[in-house]
Amino acid sequence: MADPYSKLVSSQFGRRMAGRLGLPTPTPLRRYRPGDPVVSGPVLVGAAEGSRLGAPLARTLEAVHAEVHETPAEDERYAGLVFDATGIESSTRLGQLRDFFSPVIRRTARCGRLIVLGTPPEEIEDPAERTAQRALEGFVRTAGKELKGGSTAQLVYVSRGGEQSVDSTVRFLLSAKSAFVSGQVIRVGARRAGQADGQQPLREKVALVTGASRGIGASIAETLARDGAHVVCLDVPAQGEDLTKVANRVGGSALQLDITAQDAPQRVVEHFAERHEGLDIVVHNAGITRDKTIGRMSEDKWDPVLTVNLAAQERLNAALLADSSPLRRGGRLIGVASISGIAGNVGQANYATSKAGVIGHVQALADRAAERGVTINAVAPGFIETAMTAAVPLAIREAGRRMNSLAQGGLPVDVAETVAFYADPGSDGVNGNVIRVCGQSMLGA
Amino acid sequence: MADPYSKLVSSQFGRRMAGRLGLPTPTPLRRYRPGDPVVSGPVLVGAAEGSRLGAPLARTLEAVHAEVHETPAEDERYAGLVFDATGIESSTRLGQLRDFFSPVIRRTARCGRLIVLGTPPEEIEDPAERTAQRALEGFVRTAGKELKGGSTAQLVYVSRGGEQSVDSTVRFLLSAKSAFVSGQVIRVGARRAGQADGQQPLREKVALVTGASRGIGASIAETLARDGAHVVCLDVPAQGEDLTKVANRVGGSALQLDITAQDAPQRVVEHFAERHEGLDIVVHNAGITRDKTIGRMSEDKWDPVLTVNLAAQERLNAALLADSSPLRRGGRLIGVASISGIAGNVGQANYATSKAGVIGHVQALADRAAERGVTINAVAPGFIETAMTAAVPLAIREAGRRMNSLAQGGLPVDVAETVAFYADPGSDGVNGNVIRVCGQSMLGA
Repeated sequence: MADPYSKLVSSQFGRRMAGRLGLPTPTPLRRYRPGDPVVSGPVLVGAAEGSRLGAPLARTLEAVHAEVHETPAEDERYAGLVFDATGIESSTRLGQLRDFFSPVIRRTARCGRLIVLGTPPEEIEDPAERTAQRALEGFVRTAGKELKGGSTAQLVYVSRGGEQSVDSTVRFLLSAKSAFVSGQVIRVGARRAGQADGQQPLREKVALVTGASRGIGASIAETLARDGAHVVCLDVPAQGEDLTKVANRVGGSALQLDITAQDAPQRVVEHFAERHEGLDIVVHNAGITRDKTIGRMSEDKWDPVLTVNLAAQERLNAALLADSSPLRRGGRLIGVASISGIAGNVGQANYATSKAGVIGHVQALADRAAERGVTINAVAPGFIETAMTAAVPLAIREAGRRMNSLAQGGLPVDVAETVAFYADPGSDGVNGNVIRVCGQSMLGA
Repeated sequence: MADPYSKLVSSQFGRRMAGRLGLPTPTPLRRYRPGDPVVSGPVLVGAAEGSRLGAPLARTLEAVHAEVHETPAEDERYAGLVFDATGIESSTRLGQLRDFFSPVIRRTARCGRLIVLGTPPEEIEDPAERTAQRALEGFVRTAGKELKGGSTAQLVYVSRGGEQSVDSTVRFLLSAKSAFVSGQVIRVGARRAGQADGQQPLREKVALVTGASRGIGASIAETLARDGAHVVCLDVPAQGEDLTKVANRVGGSALQLDITAQDAPQRVVEHFAERHEGLDIVVHNAGITRDKTIGRMSEDKWDPVLTVNLAAQERLNAALLADSSPLRRGGRLIGVASISGIAGNVGQANYATSKAGVIGHVQALADRAAERGVTINAVAPGFIETAMTAAVPLAIREAGRRMNSLAQGGLPVDVAETVAFYADPGSDGVNGNVIRVCGQSMLGA
């Protein structure tokens, strides 16, 4: 393709480069295995003067049996560095970030976690405080780029009144479940969070995953099943064989259906009303690509991509938010966007438009979902190692894989873990978010 | 520095690459010279069914004497492709983008302009329409990456009721003044726009430019003076000699002042109240860097960067928005952010925090500014060729310069032209924006 970077890596020198250059060997990321503790080393906690999240943070850290330090110990390596910056009310106080992190950031353990907590700027009246809280983003995104050894950095904006809702987010970000999530800004609202069993947070939940026969969809089905959900795996009839295998593997059931069919929403609604007495989690993972540059893009490349990736999802969600829906209170609608939808991508005008639309759809429905007692969020994968990316030419693939702060591609399970975080009953306050699962890709808008 | 790309380009192969690889020769960008027409070739205009910006668009195109086509002529090359997408109310209608652009996008002239107009998604109630309007972004960002020959692509969201305010934005984007602006989303609100003289839009305006003794600041001073403003050039006393030269060159005046001094806001207020009977345009261009990674960043690297780049600007704007301010109705507050403030940057935690703060400051004050009859906006430069970037090692510089859709660095005048666009009396509806001047840099968040 024709963007400067692609040209670079497909040039003669770029190719040789991919094989021989002095790129760092990426750190193998630690990923979650059932039974693992949330955090496996000491966590250093600090707070700006006047911050308000100390108590909920302490409760979460105690609940996960973390060894909490409040002053740095000599020679200690920290699995987590957590700073509550909600007390920072003006830019002249931002130096407290430096005061806390500068002496210890080089002592972050392998696959360590840096978390800064703030207040959503858009909810702040006072201009000086709003400015300072927005400034946190520049610090955290820089920290993500500076950290080495598979460590990540995130900013969590917690609404005033949302102090009791932050638990699931902190757990997720501290844990190995967020291995490939870095440089992200997550917003937690003021809604009361449900309680969940630590090992099986989705017990007795019924989930629907579209495009579940392989790749990321299959991984999402597995991860939700691991967490206790009954997963209904949906895909088109042509994928029936693979679909059955996945459904059997996860102890769920298979539903062969073309989500673009006129009656698809009605059939889904009926299926869950009749067979499961309800539905809790819907993951709109089904997606297709039909790449062409705009000048060569025919209708038959455009229409199916928009229909599968966006319109089908909109129709189904409309049906699920209607009065007669089987979607239960505490329900979760989860979309799959893409970095292409954020940054655009050569040859993918159709795909990027559909994925930008997924982001718009989440934002458009967040308030409505909240009124119904459900949430809607999306993940935006970056470079994930799948059969689809394996088909990309080597040099471009190698480049795509390296162009992020963790210098490697993610795995389908990384997307699945973020979906499971949204699905968690403790994530009631997490609504309207789009979290990139991209290792803090350099690409963006 | 330590991010993957920097490592790549500072490696042995990266260096050789920078000299020898098969990167495209970037197209020399056409830049505005006084007397040039806004657009120097035919403009193809289209609209989705039910769109609402046809009349104001026609008025603008007539006013700039554009040759307007409504159906593509055989073999014509277009200086502008403008599509009014405000009528698109659902994702199933997004194909109209393809219908319009696919047959003609390869006939964009050198340094051509692609513009899509929409409605701000956040102002739309209907979820389907909101989703579709948000989806436009994926299309435009892709188009920006696909276009060749120095052409650019932008999305302009025009509020309902803002039909009369869009003129200055369309002129800017069609013209060579926006040479290095691409892949941007600009919002135009419903405020009535002032009238301006085409050649000297800033006649009788008084402007203040901080950090005006060189580089981008000097270029801003020159550009505002070209447009008719009396420019007060401000810098620290140590830059006095250069400052005087710039002030003389632009027929303005020099003001030696340290903007971080306790009494700086008061002195500025007094200066303009006494010497100029008022002030219209303030450009907060002064900025410094003190790069270190977080682990090595001392207070004396942090504090001055935050103070100069952010706190001084906040204090001055607070004084200028107070009741006794010399800032006149129709006034303009303009900040300078940075891609580092959006994406973070290795070694620049202080700088990125300050620049993210500038973005927060603009967002925090936009409503307040509007109540006072003024606007506040920011530019976020990407790689701009200045003495500062000339000091960057060759390989990194060459990479930084190429990593955007135009495959080259911008010039100080590109930042200055965007500032002049904000300053234009016709830009009353442009408030709370952060426009990147980066050639659609691949880097982002």
